[in-house]
Amino acid sequence: MKIKSPLDNVRIVMVNTSHPGNIGAASRVMKNMGLTQLYLVEPKLFPHQDATSMAAGANDILENAQIVDKLEDALIGCHVVLGTTARSRKIRHRVVEPREAALQCARISTQAQVALVFGRERTGLTNAETDQCEVLINIPSNASFSSLNVASAVQILCYELMLRHRDMQVEHAEKSQVEENQVEKNRELLHKELDMASHEQMEHFFNHLQNTIQGIGFLDRKISPQIMPKLKNIYHRCELEKSEVNMLRGILTAMDKHVSS
Amino acid sequence: MKIKSPLDNVRIVMVNTSHPGNIGAASRVMKNMGLTQLYLVEPKLFPHQDATSMAAGANDILENAQIVDKLEDALIGCHVVLGTTARSRKIRHRVVEPREAALQCARISTQAQVALVFGRERTGLTNAETDQCEVLINIPSNASFSSLNVASAVQILCYELMLRHRDMQVEHAEKSQVEENQVEKNRELLHKELDMASHEQMEHFFNHLQNTIQGIGFLDRKISPQIMPKLKNIYHRCELEKSEVNMLRGILTAMDKHVSS
Repeated sequence: MKIKSPLDNVRIVMVNTSHPGNIGAASRVMKNMGLTQLYLVEPKLFPHQDATSMAAGANDILENAQIVDKLEDALIGCHVVLGTTARSRKIRHRVVEPREAALQCARISTQAQVALVFGRERTGLTNAETDQCEVLINIPSNASFSSLNVASAVQILCYELMLRHRDMQVEHAEKSQVEENQVEKNRELLHKELDMASHEQMEHFFNHLQNTIQGIGFLDRKISPQIMPKLKNIYHRCELEKSEVNMLRGILTAMDKHVSS
Repeated sequence: MKIKSPLDNVRIVMVNTSHPGNIGAASRVMKNMGLTQLYLVEPKLFPHQDATSMAAGANDILENAQIVDKLEDALIGCHVVLGTTARSRKIRHRVVEPREAALQCARISTQAQVALVFGRERTGLTNAETDQCEVLINIPSNASFSSLNVASAVQILCYELMLRHRDMQVEHAEKSQVEENQVEKNRELLHKELDMASHEQMEHFFNHLQNTIQGIGFLDRKISPQIMPKLKNIYHRCELEKSEVNMLRGILTAMDKHVSS
């Protein structure tokens, strides 16, 4: 059996893709760059000969692709979810460029699962889908012609990931050498990230929060349907640790008791 | 009229492309990343509806594409020519990765034309074509599945170029600030590169060299047809300056006189 690589911990999640050729092209670039885990959320046409043709030999990626009905199902077990977007949204997410995204993914993927989410060809990700991402990735481009082909976006992210992964291998090899600084810094960052609340913990927290603020009559009073997304973004941006989420949920639980009593 | 950007000085040269869809996809990623100059050397099918369809709106790039019969014609006026390759060749070229290639291109493109050459879908560039490149670019990839789609290769290079170009704009803006070091270093490097012999001067030199060594009976004596490629690579690797080429050609001219006398 092939030894598991950290790149096997990185999921490429394609949402509601229209053209099967794009799925095939994405599988080819994944394999070119050493990635293996493809998730397809409600693909329009799959399997399809255009996918197989554009895969150009990356059939194993296509055959092992997980096909799911909802984005949530593709994210189960992921520690961090990063979504690609061309639009600047009104609500402020943490937005990074591919190189920084790859740095974070590569670190976490040494110990946990990470998802990179790519939206529809024309319309990208919905707000509801974007709200499931802790971090958004913006690929820099020509402002007057910024819509990248989805397989091109997968290509750029996989390329940056592979480079970063390779650098980390070099760093690992140099660990016993003098330059332990960067490795140590990465280790500290990783520990920090693993101390941080996982995607699932955050989702549980948000459900709890929503129930609680509904329970206390706050959500119904307000007109805007943007309240939960805005709350989510606040908590995503401040990058909560596990212990902080537990504390916040403790407050919610205490609040819940007041309501039900 | 649009103000000319250094990225307009970077030519994307696609050699003998089989699938017009790849030409279209390449034009899209070029426009996404702010590049404009596409050269097509003997495309199999062009214009073609697949090219237009995959261009997804980058029609201006396709319509302005220069179609030529020979690679040489696409390189006229270029100061440096960089070729992409998946293979490691026997003869030692200077081989760089995309990021380093982009660094060099971006510097030179502020004052002179640069070409990035991409080969056929299945077989890449011929040895004769590779011999026309001063530098080869190797895109790092999975060793057991290393063949990238040609539009993917164009994507990665254009992406790196755009990032580097953007960084240089930032550096330029900071020129009057304290951090002049990097800008100064780039300027020195650029001056060094502009002092270097241009692609055309090198080609003239190689023609002269070939004529001379044929004239002196050296080329006929030898069995290997690899002599000129080997010589070219030696001179490419040592990155000759203009004055050095003039000197070498002076030697050749002196030798020529001996032969004809």
